[in-house]
Amino acid sequence: MFQTRKREAGEGLRVAIVGATGAVGEVLLGILEERQLPIETLLPLASHRSVGRTVSFRGNEIEVQEAKPEAFDGLDIVFFAATGSLSKELAPEAAKRGAIAIDKSSTWRMDDRVPLVVPEINPEALDAHEGIIASPNCTTIGVVMALEPIRRVAGLEYVVITTLQATSGAGKPGVDELEAQVTAIREGREPKAEVFAAPIAYNTVPLCETFRPEDGYTTEEVKLLYETRKILGPTHSGGDVDVHMTCVRVPVPVGHAATMLIQTERTISPEAAREALAAFPGIEVVDDIATNLFPTQRDVVGRDEVLVGRIRRDLTSDRIALWQVSDNLRKGAATNSVQIVEALIERGLV
Amino acid sequence: MFQTRKREAGEGLRVAIVGATGAVGEVLLGILEERQLPIETLLPLASHRSVGRTVSFRGNEIEVQEAKPEAFDGLDIVFFAATGSLSKELAPEAAKRGAIAIDKSSTWRMDDRVPLVVPEINPEALDAHEGIIASPNCTTIGVVMALEPIRRVAGLEYVVITTLQATSGAGKPGVDELEAQVTAIREGREPKAEVFAAPIAYNTVPLCETFRPEDGYTTEEVKLLYETRKILGPTHSGGDVDVHMTCVRVPVPVGHAATMLIQTERTISPEAAREALAAFPGIEVVDDIATNLFPTQRDVVGRDEVLVGRIRRDLTSDRIALWQVSDNLRKGAATNSVQIVEALIERGLV
Repeated sequence: MFQTRKREAGEGLRVAIVGATGAVGEVLLGILEERQLPIETLLPLASHRSVGRTVSFRGNEIEVQEAKPEAFDGLDIVFFAATGSLSKELAPEAAKRGAIAIDKSSTWRMDDRVPLVVPEINPEALDAHEGIIASPNCTTIGVVMALEPIRRVAGLEYVVITTLQATSGAGKPGVDELEAQVTAIREGREPKAEVFAAPIAYNTVPLCETFRPEDGYTTEEVKLLYETRKILGPTHSGGDVDVHMTCVRVPVPVGHAATMLIQTERTISPEAAREALAAFPGIEVVDDIATNLFPTQRDVVGRDEVLVGRIRRDLTSDRIALWQVSDNLRKGAATNSVQIVEALIERGLV
Repeated sequence: MFQTRKREAGEGLRVAIVGATGAVGEVLLGILEERQLPIETLLPLASHRSVGRTVSFRGNEIEVQEAKPEAFDGLDIVFFAATGSLSKELAPEAAKRGAIAIDKSSTWRMDDRVPLVVPEINPEALDAHEGIIASPNCTTIGVVMALEPIRRVAGLEYVVITTLQATSGAGKPGVDELEAQVTAIREGREPKAEVFAAPIAYNTVPLCETFRPEDGYTTEEVKLLYETRKILGPTHSGGDVDVHMTCVRVPVPVGHAATMLIQTERTISPEAAREALAAFPGIEVVDDIATNLFPTQRDVVGRDEVLVGRIRRDLTSDRIALWQVSDNLRKGAATNSVQIVEALIERGLV
């Protein structure tokens, strides 16, 4: 069993953030301030380009240091909120020094030794960790949060998903590109597309990340299939859930949305699905057609819950349809990572 | 059989447009100029509020007259590009006077006496018309155009669709509301939502038109099911196609997009689907992952073709997935109406 350093009674956690100055890092700092994690020291780390900048935490300005192996000595938790290549190189270095790496990148997610955890769903997976724990992709988190309550009451055979993903999924450059293109188009100039493969302002782009030559799917899309399966495990008598998906980038700065058509193993009424969703921790049902009530990306910004609406029976089958939104920087990234640490504490693993 | 007036050899058509000053009416005027319809006179009609305004056609400014029954005397074709209530009242009046009403509204589409036509797909339905012909909803047209070539080679059992629909689907007020909200948000003010049920700028809204209390679907969504069935007829040995759909409004002024997951009756390869689509009139395949090539709404503005890309085999089933975009004001509305008249001429029906 992986062992972090022995802490004295009342002694807090020594925490570092790799990528503290990025889009997710900034949100993570805010969430660590909001929530009640017992943090003794917080060390912001980044690539050498950001060294010397400061980040603000609990009223103090803390200088960013370089993310390198020796920086992890004596730490309990290292959040990786940076690129996958940095996680690949440095997460094992953190673990080697007795710190638990909580990784936001895709690097370690499908590694058999690495738990892939959404704490509301599979916290028990944490018990077998070997020093690296992965947080799922932002789109996966919203999807599994909406699937799990339904799986528990009715089993899951497959789900057909279309995601509508925010530009911040590509970090700050994605958000900036949207704004620059909106300005250009309003001034009658050609928008320049650099972060995304086509103009995203006043447009939608059916490519998130990169195409896989072998099957025409995107790297983002296949994550939804394989991560969902790893988190949920077998979901029906026939085995794992099938996920059919298209991921689309939309001109929205923050918030991922998804349409989901769910084939359960046993027929379930929309009312029973709504009840199961409403009772699940971390989900809020926002669904009243009489008052045109449904959640949008704009509603979920700054929230930690996954919002679910438009829960209904498919018109010509027994499938359940719904619409789901989450803040891709919070529950989709930073909040889930912090909840993983909270679950580690609760399970006596740190 | 419905009989229009007898024309002399070489005599052109006398055409009116009801709703000539609206979003679709304006595009329709442009398309009538572009295409080679033999038009002798063109009469712009509108509600009494617009009487006295002028529209431009083939270099002439023509004064808008009031849309009332007597205005239809002596005409051959009346395009209805206005509200459903105007079509309901006036389309029978046009037919009674020997003119063929081509209706863009939803009023007559599901009437058994009224052909619902996409000329590339079911022109033969025109032969039985009784004076009113309906053009399908803008979302339906893109969908059936992408389905029909696949149906012909492999049959269709069902399709799961998520649409991403332009604000111009709600006419000029929809386009204006998006722009006003973009300005408000960029200036730090609250966006005002009047046309759409929630802010559409930097957001997506899972409600097009209105909710149906009986099943939680929207009026826009059920059109996709019933219109598709009426146009395609039986699509497999078991009968009609099932359509499972969610319609989402996106902050894009012109162009409807859709993700489609298609269960064919007989297994078909993505290559065969691509070939069938590319060979179909009115479709252009834009699909090369090696060069990040796929169609977007921005690409289809001002075009009459339906653009299809991301054609691929589902990862865990034999379904075919694709992405489709069309100009909702052109092929989704005005172009299809004009093509209906071209088909009437070709079939000797006018």
